[in-house]
Amino acid sequence: MTTSTRERIAAFQAAYIRCIGQDRLEDWPAFFTAQCHYIVTTAQNVREGLPAGLIWANNRAMLEDRVAALRKANIYERQAYRHIVGQPFVTAEDAGTACAETPFMVARIMQDGQTDLFCTGVFVDEFELTAGDLRIRSRKVVCDSSRIDTLLAIPL
Amino acid sequence: MTTSTRERIAAFQAAYIRCIGQDRLEDWPAFFTAQCHYIVTTAQNVREGLPAGLIWANNRAMLEDRVAALRKANIYERQAYRHIVGQPFVTAEDAGTACAETPFMVARIMQDGQTDLFCTGVFVDEFELTAGDLRIRSRKVVCDSSRIDTLLAIPL
Amino acid sequence: MTTSTRERIAAFQAAYIRCIGQDRLEDWPAFFTAQCHYIVTTAQNVREGLPAGLIWANNRAMLEDRVAALRKANIYERQAYRHIVGQPFVTAEDAGTACAETPFMVARIMQDGQTDLFCTGVFVDEFELTAGDLRIRSRKVVCDSSRIDTLLAIPL
Repeated sequence: MTTSTRERIAAFQAAYIRCIGQDRLEDWPAFFTAQCHYIVTTAQNVREGLPAGLIWANNRAMLEDRVAALRKANIYERQAYRHIVGQPFVTAEDAGTACAETPFMVARIMQDGQTDLFCTGVFVDEFELTAGDLRIRSRKVVCDSSRIDTLLAIPL
Repeated sequence: MTTSTRERIAAFQAAYIRCIGQDRLEDWPAFFTAQCHYIVTTAQNVREGLPAGLIWANNRAMLEDRVAALRKANIYERQAYRHIVGQPFVTAEDAGTACAETPFMVARIMQDGQTDLFCTGVFVDEFELTAGDLRIRSRKVVCDSSRIDTLLAIPL
Repeated sequence: MTTSTRERIAAFQAAYIRCIGQDRLEDWPAFFTAQCHYIVTTAQNVREGLPAGLIWANNRAMLEDRVAALRKANIYERQAYRHIVGQPFVTAEDAGTACAETPFMVARIMQDGQTDLFCTGVFVDEFELTAGDLRIRSRKVVCDSSRIDTLLAIPL
């Protein structure tokens, strides 16, 4: 059975946010190629042509460092997060590469059960396609909100 | 044409929340097999290994009872709900069975139009696959919030 | 490779909300056939059998006029919006036509970064299917909230 690239990307995003949702952060870097770009920025930064925001990595080892940092920061965690992704849109595709944009929302659930919308944005991705697998070669997380400091609390 | 199991599950979830969204609650039990497990619980309960939360059923007749109870409770309904499901992730699959996890969000819309995020979580499902159809053999609704009492108001 | 109609509609909705999200409003009417119906209404209006709400168009030129009006209204825009669509449910389908319902959520992001759920609802669509393409022949946007006046600010 053949599966469309869009369908494969949708399945990938589902696996990606499930990994984060289950707090298996140590598995998170494996969604990326060894040489990869990972940037978290804001829509405003993108509009103004400014360089990337607070989070920037250009290989998988830096993502592993980030996980270690998150583990330290989250010792006293008092809230949970729920990621949800919408429908991916494939912007480019050839034999070994696909580019896509996928909107996301993240809800934050406080200790007392209060739930609100924490952040929204879009994953701008370049994937390496192989026979059985997809990996992120480049992910730019463009957050709609400009309060990017608070976004340091969770992986996106 | 063949369709991937993930695609079939996505279509199933779309039908499931549409049924609830249209308030056709009497049709809701038909999404389950006659012998089925249906549990609504919280992420905290799951983490602490506690038994299921307030809602628990092990056959379709109990779901029908639940619909009857909801109909009574909702006589003076003053709010509406909007369910949205994200991308399913297939965790296991063989000829007649598939397991998947699908994140969801529910928005609540008050009489005055005020809209907020009511609850979020994940459906942890086991499906019976047949040629033309899918049915839920087991659904564990894991809500991120621990204020599960308020969750009695709507089917999930 | 064949692609299911549901998959094609999911891809279409992804393209549609991406167009709006990127503020390419001038490209928005091209998602519709030249003769088309476009209505924004509320769930309450639908329940009570009332005629359409504030926004109503029966051809593409009216949608182009609407874009022009939005451009004027948005000169002093102080917020951003993020649309997300869930899973489409195909309600009818033949060789050249498909009908589907697709739930959506729209988040609003204020200048100071505050993010909330702006509106939710469902797209009730009739599509014209051709070999390579989908176009909307009829879209009824049914908003869950009844504060439809505020919905004039963005395309849905």
